[in-house]
Amino acid sequence: MTEHLTIAVDGMGGDTGPEMVVSGVSIARERNPDARFLIFGDASELQRQLDKFPELHKSCELVHTDVAVAMDDKPSQALRRGRKTSSMWLAIMAVKEGRAQAAISAGNTGALMAMAKVILKTMSDIERPAIAAIWPTVRGESVVLDVGATIGVDSQMLVQFAVMGEAMARTIFGHERPTVGLLNIGVEEVKGLEEVKAAGRLLKEANLPIEYCGFIEGNDIGQGVVDVVVTEGFSGNIALKTAEGTAKQIGEYLRSAMSRSLSARIGYLFARGAFNVLREKMDPRTMNGGVFLGLNGIVVKSHGGTDGVGFASAIDLALDMARNDLVARIARDLGKYHAQPAPETEPQVEDKVEV
Amino acid sequence: MTEHLTIAVDGMGGDTGPEMVVSGVSIARERNPDARFLIFGDASELQRQLDKFPELHKSCELVHTDVAVAMDDKPSQALRRGRKTSSMWLAIMAVKEGRAQAAISAGNTGALMAMAKVILKTMSDIERPAIAAIWPTVRGESVVLDVGATIGVDSQMLVQFAVMGEAMARTIFGHERPTVGLLNIGVEEVKGLEEVKAAGRLLKEANLPIEYCGFIEGNDIGQGVVDVVVTEGFSGNIALKTAEGTAKQIGEYLRSAMSRSLSARIGYLFARGAFNVLREKMDPRTMNGGVFLGLNGIVVKSHGGTDGVGFASAIDLALDMARNDLVARIARDLGKYHAQPAPETEPQVEDKVEV
Repeated sequence: MTEHLTIAVDGMGGDTGPEMVVSGVSIARERNPDARFLIFGDASELQRQLDKFPELHKSCELVHTDVAVAMDDKPSQALRRGRKTSSMWLAIMAVKEGRAQAAISAGNTGALMAMAKVILKTMSDIERPAIAAIWPTVRGESVVLDVGATIGVDSQMLVQFAVMGEAMARTIFGHERPTVGLLNIGVEEVKGLEEVKAAGRLLKEANLPIEYCGFIEGNDIGQGVVDVVVTEGFSGNIALKTAEGTAKQIGEYLRSAMSRSLSARIGYLFARGAFNVLREKMDPRTMNGGVFLGLNGIVVKSHGGTDGVGFASAIDLALDMARNDLVARIARDLGKYHAQPAPETEPQVEDKVEV
Repeated sequence: MTEHLTIAVDGMGGDTGPEMVVSGVSIARERNPDARFLIFGDASELQRQLDKFPELHKSCELVHTDVAVAMDDKPSQALRRGRKTSSMWLAIMAVKEGRAQAAISAGNTGALMAMAKVILKTMSDIERPAIAAIWPTVRGESVVLDVGATIGVDSQMLVQFAVMGEAMARTIFGHERPTVGLLNIGVEEVKGLEEVKAAGRLLKEANLPIEYCGFIEGNDIGQGVVDVVVTEGFSGNIALKTAEGTAKQIGEYLRSAMSRSLSARIGYLFARGAFNVLREKMDPRTMNGGVFLGLNGIVVKSHGGTDGVGFASAIDLALDMARNDLVARIARDLGKYHAQPAPETEPQVEDKVEV
């Protein structure tokens, strides 16, 4: 276990910037007293926030820059304006130069991915990086990837996502052999994308140490049928946002139902403890953090609209992966995969998880 | 308003077959006393079920067949085995021959779509039919299509989905001008599929009487940001099933939270009325029914695992669309679209619904 891991923090990212970021660092430091934070951004503003948490002084170092990437900058704009100078760029650069073991930003996702690719480069054999999210399930948590970095992947890329997601699941869940499924659709007539079917064949035939379980459908994700759900970025992003939207919608139904009559309000008072448990389970902040996989370094994207509690969850995630040296694990696993002879990919009977 | 609408019913579809089907017909008939039902399948089994509901005798006619499509038949198998003889085929044929105004089945989706295409044919100008679902939202309901009939559509097909979905929304919601959005992803770097962007340009530039509102994301669906959500079948199916799975997951959280302590159980008793309202809102049976759009006739697919209450909802939907002559509406609207000169499709600034 490495001592004194350092997280490079984009101090200016997110809808509210330094205030949220520093409050998140403060919460994360309580849980990880040995961690160090290298925070990039407007030093006077950041210092003002840090002054609220005197206990942070020993753990944090500020690096001043005037330049911040805007939430609505296009990636190309961000690269033009923020190259070498922005808080986001500098945070990723700290990982590249070994001064930090992971970078975190609540800023613009596209800009963060573009800069991460330019600075850290994709790992050898990886065609495109993916963003992995942690998805709460009735059994615990699953890793879902890609949730928006790629559109239109081929079967090789899906297999790479499976290898990377599996390594991440081993890292954060501590399972020996996490199970892996490919997200597909069950309508018989079309029975899924060709790329997904081909990836399924590759995963079955490649002699990888991966517990591949076949296809799953959208409703299987929340049931935790597999530990790692592999899909392409368009459908993955839609699945993730649809689940978030559905949780919000049901929360609204519940609030309105619980305030509709005196007896419901009394019931609510009695069951307050239970509602708090539920609220915690449904709290998107506890699952905050998209991990960029496939780069030569760890970069975590926090939701832009989160608060300190949410940002701290994303920091925990970054620390967890830095501690377990996720990048080295992925490199090792990908090496095994690519060292194999190419498997035959004759079409065969579709596989499907029985649930 | 047509009197005595007739619904052709596949009596053998669904996980439990005749018992569920006939109980659904009985519930639907109470709400639609003028409706007639032409039920195809094993006459002795169906008769035994009908005998439980003497009031149904006047409304139902049985047509015997020995052949039923199995839930796991591939569409090609179903067409081979069930052509001209199966209860599913005969129900659709009744629509083709004008003996019924809509067909309904809780059977195998792929087989139903394959048979519907063979018998009813796609409407002129329609490349591929879609399946439309009704999605509960915090504002009421929205139509979402396609939820699984097509994979890999082009921009023209997405525009056709928009036209058909809009006509369906006018029919069932009674809005003058339902709003229409294209499902997309918001990550800046990739910013959505090319086909979706091109469809957005077509919808903006075509001078259609459609209230096109731009792109929406997965979390906007449940908020009811638009009345009609247009997407391709792979992502649409994943969105729909993910939302169903999330609702189920939260229901499980809620049940477990409400039984975890005495005080929670007491609270539950007080708030029982509120929980019943919530349960009703989250009941997937009330939204049962996928509508096949783009065919020369109305076919509704019920969930295979539903019960009589759910099947009755799908019958209501079929009746609603038959009553309003959905097919003629769609033909009229598509005619307007295809009569237009092809719009310019120069790339332009992306549009996005403000929410």
